[in-house]
Amino acid sequence: MVTEIEIRVGLKMGMADPEGANVQKALNLLGFDSINGVESAKCYRIIIDKEEKAALELAEKMCRQLLANPVVHNYTISVAD
Amino acid sequence: MVTEIEIRVGLKMGMADPEGANVQKALNLLGFDSINGVESAKCYRIIIDKEEKAALELAEKMCRQLLANPVVHNYTISVAD
Repeated sequence: MVTEIEIRVGLKMGMADPEGANVQKALNLLGFDSINGVESAKCYRIIIDKEEKAALELAEKMCRQLLANPVVHNYTISVAD
Repeated sequence: MVTEIEIRVGLKMGMADPEGANVQKALNLLGFDSINGVESAKCYRIIIDKEEKAALELAEKMCRQLLANPVVHNYTISVAD
């Protein structure tokens, strides 16, 4: 059985997010004036040869070992639709 | 009213995804051997001073004008929980 996992690696509250800030600036310059904030994040869709429960556990390990830096990142893991 | 929108900008089918390929290689080297594929994508969480329907329409415009390149990217827009 194959499970598709979606991992979202974002910045922890208070970390500088220059990419998000620049996107917000660019959107303002384009005339979008009702924007209150932009946060950027990195997403990975990983196809794992396991059933759902095992795949979610593996994804958690992948985040801890490679994808996220616990000093600056938080992450969410979900099963992709 | 404020709406939080999540935009996911991914690569179209068939586009080279070196970041995804390298993540897969690194995970394999770390001993994760049940991985069938990794796709990377960029996510933006945008806080918009509008109600849901208007915010979704604005987000669609933002993707077309700035966030996604229609030659290489596809995107999904959703209301963040």
